[in-house]
Order: sequence, then C-alpha cells, then structure tokens
Amino acid sequence: MAGERRVVVVGGGFGGLELVSGLRRTPVEITLVDRNNFHLFQPLAYQVATGALSAVEIAVPLRRVFRRQRNVRVVMAEVAGFDLDQRLVRLADLPNGEPGETLPYDVLAVAGGSAYSYFGHDEWAQYAPELKTLEGALHLRSQILSAFEAAEVEPDEARRRAWLTFVVVGAGPTGVEMAGQIAEIAHAVRRDFRSVDTDTARVLLVEAADRVLTAFPPRLSAKAARSLEKLGATPMVDATVVDIGPGRVEVRRNGERETIETRTIVWAAGVTASPLAGELARAIGAEVDRAGRLVVEPDLTLPGHPEVFGLGDMVVVQDGKGGVQQLPGVAPVAMQQGRHVAKEIAQGERKPFRYRDKGNLATIGRSHAVADIKGFQLSGFLAWITWLVVHLFYLIGFQNRLLVLVRWTFSYVTRGRGARVIHD
Amino acid sequence: MAGERRVVVVGGGFGGLELVSGLRRTPVEITLVDRNNFHLFQPLAYQVATGALSAVEIAVPLRRVFRRQRNVRVVMAEVAGFDLDQRLVRLADLPNGEPGETLPYDVLAVAGGSAYSYFGHDEWAQYAPELKTLEGALHLRSQILSAFEAAEVEPDEARRRAWLTFVVVGAGPTGVEMAGQIAEIAHAVRRDFRSVDTDTARVLLVEAADRVLTAFPPRLSAKAARSLEKLGATPMVDATVVDIGPGRVEVRRNGERETIETRTIVWAAGVTASPLAGELARAIGAEVDRAGRLVVEPDLTLPGHPEVFGLGDMVVVQDGKGGVQQLPGVAPVAMQQGRHVAKEIAQGERKPFRYRDKGNLATIGRSHAVADIKGFQLSGFLAWITWLVVHLFYLIGFQNRLLVLVRWTFSYVTRGRGARVIHD
Repeated sequence: MAGERRVVVVGGGFGGLELVSGLRRTPVEITLVDRNNFHLFQPLAYQVATGALSAVEIAVPLRRVFRRQRNVRVVMAEVAGFDLDQRLVRLADLPNGEPGETLPYDVLAVAGGSAYSYFGHDEWAQYAPELKTLEGALHLRSQILSAFEAAEVEPDEARRRAWLTFVVVGAGPTGVEMAGQIAEIAHAVRRDFRSVDTDTARVLLVEAADRVLTAFPPRLSAKAARSLEKLGATPMVDATVVDIGPGRVEVRRNGERETIETRTIVWAAGVTASPLAGELARAIGAEVDRAGRLVVEPDLTLPGHPEVFGLGDMVVVQDGKGGVQQLPGVAPVAMQQGRHVAKEIAQGERKPFRYRDKGNLATIGRSHAVADIKGFQLSGFLAWITWLVVHLFYLIGFQNRLLVLVRWTFSYVTRGRGARVIHD
Repeated sequence: MAGERRVVVVGGGFGGLELVSGLRRTPVEITLVDRNNFHLFQPLAYQVATGALSAVEIAVPLRRVFRRQRNVRVVMAEVAGFDLDQRLVRLADLPNGEPGETLPYDVLAVAGGSAYSYFGHDEWAQYAPELKTLEGALHLRSQILSAFEAAEVEPDEARRRAWLTFVVVGAGPTGVEMAGQIAEIAHAVRRDFRSVDTDTARVLLVEAADRVLTAFPPRLSAKAARSLEKLGATPMVDATVVDIGPGRVEVRRNGERETIETRTIVWAAGVTASPLAGELARAIGAEVDRAGRLVVEPDLTLPGHPEVFGLGDMVVVQDGKGGVQQLPGVAPVAMQQGRHVAKEIAQGERKPFRYRDKGNLATIGRSHAVADIKGFQLSGFLAWITWLVVHLFYLIGFQNRLLVLVRWTFSYVTRGRGARVIHD
C-alpha cells in the first residue's frame, strides 16, 4: 500500500475510534496510537469503582476493534511531541529504555481527551482519586470496599463514623451516579456485616453550584436530588471544597467553613484537557483556554494547518463568528467529531462541524434516571430503561454487552451485590 | 449467643470455607479470618493470567458467602501469631497503624494454604511471577499481553524473538494449562498484529521430571504432551532451572546448560506451606517438613492440642502407623478435611481423616483435557467436558457460574479472544 496517505490518529477514545472506523473504506494507511491497549467506555467507569462491573467489561482491546480493518496499525505508546514542519509524531521511549519510534504523517488527528483537574491542588489527588481512568476507578473500588471492612473492626466510634462517611466532589452525571451507587452499596451490604450498621453510612455529594446536574433543566435537577436523598445520599449544594487532607475535606458553605471527617473521597469535579492540546498550541504559537483546551477552526483543523485535526474534549471549536461553540465534554460530541473528520479526510474537503444534540442522560441508582431529550424531559423508571438501552447499545463488543446485561440483571434482582472483591 | 463455643477459623480457602459452612447448624460463634475479603477459586487463577476470565469471576467476597449464616463473623486481617496456652489469635496491626485485635478461642482451625516456592531463590520471583494469588495472576496477564505489544514495535530481530518466547516452569496441571493457553493466545491474536507474526511465538514448558503431569498415569502424560505440541507449546522434560535473570532462563538438560532468551517467565513449580504452619509448629516445639508443612495427628489436630486443627495443603497428616498420608495439594483434599473438622467440632469426637480420591483432571487448551478417575482414564473432548462441568459446579455463586459459562462459550466459539486488556 505504498504511496497511500499516512494518517496518524492519537487517542483511542470515542473520537479516535469513530475517526478510524470512518476511514475503513478509504485508501489510507492509518496508525492509531494510544498509551493503553484498550478503548475505555468511560461513561461506565464509575460502575467499576463501585464494583458493579469489572474492568474488562467496559474496556475492549483496540486491536480487537480493528482486527478486520486492514488499513489500521495499532501502536501502544505515549506521544512525546509533534514536529508540524517535518510532519512527524515522536513517540516516548519504551519502558525498557529503548528509543521510541518516530511516525511520519500526511494527515494527523489528535484526540487526547481530558483528565480530572484538582483546581491547581494536585496534592489533593492522593486523598481523592478520580474516575476517568481505569486505574483510578480500580483504586477507588478497593478504597470504598475496604472502608466497610475497616469500619467492621474499628472499636472507636468517631473513627468508625469517618470510615462510614463518603464524600463525592462534583455533582455532574458521574458524581451523581457515583453517590447514588455508594448509598445503594451501603444499604445492600447491611446484612454482610455483624459489628457495624452500614445503613448509617453518610454519602455527601459536594457541589459548588446551587443544584446537582447543572447541565439539565432545574426540574430534573430537583428530581435527581430527591432520588438521591431517597437512596440515602445527601446533596450539599453551594458548597466549595477549600482543602483536602488525610481523613478530611474542608468545604465552605454560605460563608462558613465546615470540616468533614472521612476516609473516602471521590473526585468527580472539573476536568482539564490532555497535555497534547498544549503541545499543539505551542507548536503554532497559540494559547490554550482556561481548561487547557486547544482552539481549533470550525472545521476542526489546527489554524494554519489544514492537515492537522484536533477533536474531542481537549479542543474548543470556533463558531466562525469570532466566538466558540459551547459543547459539553461528552462522548456523543467526540463521536460526531470523529465521523466529521473521517469524512473530511476521505473527501479532501474542509467543512464546519455542527453538533447534533440528541439529549442528556444520568442515572441515579437502581431503576432511577433523568433524561433531557431535545427538551423532552423524562424521569424515573422510563428514563432509566432509556439510559440502560443507550449504554448497552454503545458498549463495544457483543460479549461485553451480554456480560454487562447479565451483571445489571443480577444487581437489579439482588439489589446491587456485584463484583465486590478487594484486589490491587 | 453468649456462652457458646468460640471457633476461630484462619483462612478462607477451600478448607476454611467447607469447615465454616459445615458448622452452619452448630451452636458456635465463628470468626473467619482471611487477609483478603474474598475466597479465590485457585484452580482457575491461571485463566485470569491469560485473560480468559476476569478477576471477580473466580473470586467471591467471603461476607457474601456467609451472608445468611448468622453464626459467622468475617474479619479481613493478617494473623500475626498464636498463643496456644492463653488460646488467643493475635491479628496484625491495621495498615493505618492501629493495633490489631486479639481473638480468644475455644477451638482454633488453621488453613493457611501454601504459596509457590522458588527453591530458595527468592530473587527469581521478580522475573518469574507465580499463579497462586490474584495479584500474581493479574501481574502475569499484564506481562503476557504487553509482550505481544512490545514485539509489534520492536525493530531488532533477536529482541523480538525474546518478546515472543514464553517460558513456563513446572508441568503440573497449572503449568500445562498455562502453556496451552499461551500457545492458543499467540495463535488467536495473529490477525490483530501487523508487523509481527505471533504464530512464531515459542512456548516452552520446563519440567525437571521425565514427563508432564507426573501425578497422572504415563499414558495420559503422553497424551497431554502431544496435545500441547499440537497447540504449539513445547514440553522440555528432564530440564532443571538453574538460574533466572533479567531476560533469560538457564536450564540444565542431559548435563548441558542452555540459555533461553525470554521476556516472560511463569512460575508454576514447587510450593511451600504458609508461614502459619511454622508458627504452629514452633508453638508446640515441633518441626515442619521440607515443604514447610505442619505435621498433624490423623484426626487433623495439633499434637497435644485437641482444640487446635490444621488442614489443607499447609499440613501433612500422620497415618497412625508412624508414617504420613500421601495427599496431593488439591482442593478436594482441603474440602474433605474442612468437612471432617466441622463434624469433629460439632460432635466433639476425634476421628482419623481418610481422603476419598475422586480423580484428577487437567485441561490443555480449548477442547482438550485428560482425566484419571479412579483408574478410569479419559482424554480429549469428553475429558474436557468433564473438566468444564466439574469446575463450573464448584465455582461459588450462581452469577459467577453464568458469567464464566458465557465467557467460555465465547472463547470456544471465537477461539479464545477474552479479556485482553492491559491494566494494573
């Protein structure tokens, strides 16, 4: 296939995946680079943290995804940098010290995604793991489950109370879903323990805004808050985290400072773009925005570089009128952008990207959810079924869909007793 | 339930589990101590290492097992030592430095199991992970899968060869099963890679004895060896490992020393008893045997201590005629001993233990196995179905059985593409 255009795609998330598969019938030579060997279905990562699902059910090896697509080569490596003049992607050295490859390209697409940001307080990360990576989710799972074990053998009342206090920071969909599931676990395991009443566990959902799920209409936020309370989780709105240390979270609410004694803190607040966004910005002498995102042209290309694309939640897209498009950092945006870029590469034309919003979903524990679909608002069981079907549908791989369906059915019937094994 | 006999059981393996559930109708107060919060179905741990199964499918939380058995309290902790005179079990300090509990008992049963032994070369462990713990299996999975990834990007022929060489040490059931599955993976992933032909991978099964599966009749060993070769694994019998270092295994075969260049070494050779066996032996001034095992009376009690039982593969049982019973270190022995001890505790009588051997099974890759059932020898597909049914039957939890069945069906149909995600 010599002489074909070489397309290098960085990132095997939702955007990268759609882009690569959108090029399956295009005569190009694709190299897909990711630091992991798998695509992660991030919207369900929090279920790994609660033990409802196991890691491999929401992750699928990239090689398997593109097994039959012969124009793709998958490379598991970190990207060290870009040389836009020479049109090269430099890969980082291998773990054993051998020098990394250099990949020449005719077209480059970067979809590096984003990570949770601790608002400049990176030292909080050690006390409050995040939920965006598989490692973070697995680490949290072990912490949450160990907290109940520790409470069971803790003779001191105050310390037991701290073991049974769970703080989730950030009431977006992930934070809401997480808080709901922790509350459900605490209730579900009550008969597994002898010395401690896990039903007395407190789950606090700390949110700086004045309501949970700010991306949803206020009516649905209120419904979600009520559902959370029914499950035993307490939304703490208008509350800003001012400090996190070993065994405690300090929040400011209505001007007053409060200390919450806790051993388990989940971070589901602000995100920051992948450092690759900054790399590309520097390469063209541009600046990133406050969230570390790269500003791209309306057609998703890098200013001055029609052969370089940026997509997903590491970019912000100009609207062509001097402003930028307001797009949420969710999978559907990245997927539509991936398909858009694939078409641009295949057809050689550059067209502005337009997001088609199909709606917004969040689930709150077993059998409850809220949905906002083109202004049409759903809540309760029907919304939950919608959530279920949508998530099963987009999960990659028939085997994973079947396994997740089996697990969900079981946890529905048995009220949430899932994969609660503590291991590293 | 004050005044009831306090039974402390150490170890939630096959022996401990059977013992505790055997006491479900006995008016005793049981404390089950294990360093993990789960029971591990060890015979399938190697399938976690090959990515055929995921961790939680072969592990079940001990609390869930005994959820409805109200006379059991589960404590997740390490045992620091025993005081047989005061009848106390001392638990190790908690990870956060808080002092561990001390558990008083009227009856003590210790089933600490065993671990792989590196024949006095503990420094080999870093290069050759083992398969008995979930951590070891998960670590190996990551190593095996990463080896193919590394081979794909390795430009140097000799180094690529080393990445594609897998050495399994020890040709017992676990070693044989492991070698067979690695060979199958290498074949199954051949179309996932572009630069490298994974079918050229070498899988060497190093065994010091003159045949594989020495616990089986020679005819079945020969069948197993042929099945392995068909899958692409090479048994190297009469070969002793003399050294293991970074990137190499040294073996001596027919008096000659050979160096195998490899990046992946799996340790499935000799085992050594849990240090708890030594603790108990020291407490009564006795010695352990060469494999670190505690010698117990024919009724499984500690000499001079009819209130203390030792069981599972950390003990060796006297035959009452001055010798010891020759028992394999397998799950059925531990399970029968667990039931035996439960009866002794419930009835207050001490009776000699007799092992009822129901047979021996080992599987070799997809759809092949050997079985030796009371002298009745099976091989091929029928033995494999037997293996499958037996393992599914003994797996704890209906959900796990269903999930494992789904996975096995898929890997049978798709020729072994399972949970091949690399994560920590």
